[in-house]
Amino acid sequence: MSKYLNEKFRSLVEYVPGEQPKDGEYLKLNTNESPYPPGPRTRAALRDPDLGKRLRLYSDPDSGELCRKLAETYGASRNVSAAAAPAGASAAGTKTAAGGLAPENVYVGNGSDEILNFIFMEFCEGGVLFPEISYGFYEVFADLYGVDFVKVPLKEDFSIDPADYADCGRTIVIANPNAPTGRVLSLAEIEAILKTNRENLVVIDEAYIDFGGDSAVALTGDYDNLLVVRTYSKSRSMAGARLGFAMGAKAIIDDLVKIKYATNPYNVNSLTAAAGLAALEEPGYYRENCRQIQETRNWTTEALTDLGFRVVPSTTNFIFVTTDRIGGSELYQGLKQRKILIRHFDIPAIRQYNRITIGTRRQMEYLVETIDRMLGEEQL
Amino acid sequence: MSKYLNEKFRSLVEYVPGEQPKDGEYLKLNTNESPYPPGPRTRAALRDPDLGKRLRLYSDPDSGELCRKLAETYGASRNVSAAAAPAGASAAGTKTAAGGLAPENVYVGNGSDEILNFIFMEFCEGGVLFPEISYGFYEVFADLYGVDFVKVPLKEDFSIDPADYADCGRTIVIANPNAPTGRVLSLAEIEAILKTNRENLVVIDEAYIDFGGDSAVALTGDYDNLLVVRTYSKSRSMAGARLGFAMGAKAIIDDLVKIKYATNPYNVNSLTAAAGLAALEEPGYYRENCRQIQETRNWTTEALTDLGFRVVPSTTNFIFVTTDRIGGSELYQGLKQRKILIRHFDIPAIRQYNRITIGTRRQMEYLVETIDRMLGEEQL
Repeated sequence: MSKYLNEKFRSLVEYVPGEQPKDGEYLKLNTNESPYPPGPRTRAALRDPDLGKRLRLYSDPDSGELCRKLAETYGASRNVSAAAAPAGASAAGTKTAAGGLAPENVYVGNGSDEILNFIFMEFCEGGVLFPEISYGFYEVFADLYGVDFVKVPLKEDFSIDPADYADCGRTIVIANPNAPTGRVLSLAEIEAILKTNRENLVVIDEAYIDFGGDSAVALTGDYDNLLVVRTYSKSRSMAGARLGFAMGAKAIIDDLVKIKYATNPYNVNSLTAAAGLAALEEPGYYRENCRQIQETRNWTTEALTDLGFRVVPSTTNFIFVTTDRIGGSELYQGLKQRKILIRHFDIPAIRQYNRITIGTRRQMEYLVETIDRMLGEEQL
Repeated sequence: MSKYLNEKFRSLVEYVPGEQPKDGEYLKLNTNESPYPPGPRTRAALRDPDLGKRLRLYSDPDSGELCRKLAETYGASRNVSAAAAPAGASAAGTKTAAGGLAPENVYVGNGSDEILNFIFMEFCEGGVLFPEISYGFYEVFADLYGVDFVKVPLKEDFSIDPADYADCGRTIVIANPNAPTGRVLSLAEIEAILKTNRENLVVIDEAYIDFGGDSAVALTGDYDNLLVVRTYSKSRSMAGARLGFAMGAKAIIDDLVKIKYATNPYNVNSLTAAAGLAALEEPGYYRENCRQIQETRNWTTEALTDLGFRVVPSTTNFIFVTTDRIGGSELYQGLKQRKILIRHFDIPAIRQYNRITIGTRRQMEYLVETIDRMLGEEQL
C-alpha cells in the first residue's frame, strides 16, 4: 500500500476470484467456465484478417451493432431464455422485436462485473439488499462505494424467500439462479418482488439463466424498475473475452452509459465485440452446449447422490454439494491434491459445501471416480 | 436519466470522445489513431486457432505474462522511449532488467483511461493539479469523484512551466507530451517537478511519448512518487484492442491492483493480452511506424506553414494548428463537409486552433491540398 492511497480504501477487502492455474495441470471445475469452446462462427470471426487491421481504430464506444443484435435476439425471445429459444426464433422475432427490446434498452460492458460495479456505484445511495449467500462481489462493491447494505439470509434449503424482498425501499440485487447454491426463482416470484418495489431498482443477475431458469427479460416491458444483467462467460463459453450486457428501461441504460462515458468510454474492445456479435449468429451451437451441460449435471447429481452426497437442486452449470462422509474443506483439499480444482468458500453457513462446475461427461466421470476412490482411502 | 441515479451524478458532464463514424466515408484525422495497422506478428497472434478455443477460460486476472514482458521491455530501455529503443534492446536488456523494472512495477489495464480513472478515484483525496489545456478527461474524472482540482494555465506558447508544479501538495497529473498542444517537457523538467513533490504522487501520462519525447520511465527507479501511464492506442496501432499500462513503485502498482480486484478483476481480455504480448516481439515494426509519422509530421508542418498556418512544435502524432486565414471552427466545419475529420475543441483559449492527427504521407498531402483549395474558395 502506498502513502498516496485515499484513506477510505485503506481497509478495503478485495474480491478473491477462483484459482486460475495456467499450467493446464489441473482439471478446473472451480470457476464455472464452459467445458466447450466458443462456436465455429465465433472463432472464425476472430481469424478475419480485417479484424486485426482495424484495431488501429478505436472500438465503437456505443457498441451499436452489438446492442442492436442483442435487442433483436432478446426482444424476439422475451419469454424464453436465450439458450432455450427455439431455432430460428431470432429471425422469426424481427417482428416482435419492434414491440420488444430496442437497442436503447441494452448496455454492453467489459464483463458483467463492470455492469455490477456501475450498479453499486450509481444506483445505491438509498442502500442495497442482497442474499446473504450469493455472488461474493456484491459485498465488495458495497464496501468500495460505502453503500449501506443488508444481507438477507436464505431459507434452510438455500432458496430465496421472495417475501423477504417485498416493499423494501432499497435497491435489490439478486443472482437468479443464485450462486453458489444453484437455486432459481420462478418468473412469478421475480414479478412479486418487482410489484412491491415500484420505486426501487431491482437488479436480476442472470449469469446462469441459460442452464434452466426463465429469464426476467420477459418482464422488462412491464417493469421499468427492472434491470437484467447477463454475461457471455458461461453459456456462451467466452469468459476470456470479457463481455456482459444489461437490459431494461432506457432511462436506466442511459445512466449506465453516462457513467461509462465518465470512466472508460471505449470499454468493449473490437475483438470482443466481433466475437460477441458472431456468437449471436449461431444460437443452436450454444443451446446444444447448454443441453449437454444440463444432461451431465443430472448425471453427476445422481452419481454423487449414490456416493452419499446431498446435492442442492441446480438450474446452473454447477452443483453445490455436501456429504457427511468428509468435511467441505477436506474434500476441496483432497481433490486439489489429486489435481482437480473445485470451489470451497470459507463462510460458516456453507463451510461443509463445495461448488463444482459441470464439465464434460468424461470429466465428471473422472471426478466421481476420484471422489469415490478418495473416500474409500479415507476409510482405511 | 432514471429516478434511481444517485443525486451526486445527476449533474455530471461526461467526456465527449472524437467522432467515430463507422461508414468509412471520412478521412479520420480526429482521434490520433495510427494510420498503420498492428504489425504482422501481432495480427498473426490473433489468428491462432487456440486463442479462440481458450476463450472459454477466464483471462489471467494478473496479466502476468504481459507484465513480465513489459517489465523486461521497459526495464531494458529505461533511458530510451520504447519506440526509439535500438533494435535488440529488449534481448540485450535482460541483464539490466533485473536492476530495472520488475513485473511488480507494472500494471496492465483496459486502456489507459481505466488507469487514469483509478488514479482519480484512489489517489486524489488531497486534491489534484493538472494543466488547464490538456486531456479533457482529467476534469471529468475529478468531477466524477468529487475531487478538488486546480487547473494550471499554460504559458503563452502553450508550453507547461515546471515551476507552476513545484512543491504543490497535491497529486499532479501531466500529459507529456501534452494534448492537444503536442508540446513536451524534458526529463530534466519532469525531474524538477518530482524533486519538489516527494510527498505527492506525480502521474505522467505518456500516451504520445513514442513520437519523440523522452520517457519518464527512466526516473521510476529514483522516484517512488512517480507513476508513468502508457497506452497501446497510438504508437502500437491498437486503439481498438484497449490496452494501457502503468509503471512505478510497487506500492503504487499494488494500489491499482487492489482497486482492480474490487471492481473488475478480469479487466484485460485474453485476445487483447495476446496481441499486446505479440506486439512486444516486433519493436522494429512499431519503431519504423513512429519514424514515418515523425517524418510525415515534419512535412505536414512545413506544408501548412507555407499555407500561412502557425503550427505548435509537436513531438506527437498530431499537430495543433491555427491561421488568420480562417476561424478554427470554420476550418473544422469546412473540412468535415469535404469528408475530412479533424478535432476542434470549443474552449475559449484554443477556439482558433484545431488538432490534426498525422496520417500517411498521401493522406496529409490530400489534407493540405484540400485546405489550400478550400481557403482559395473562401477568398472568392
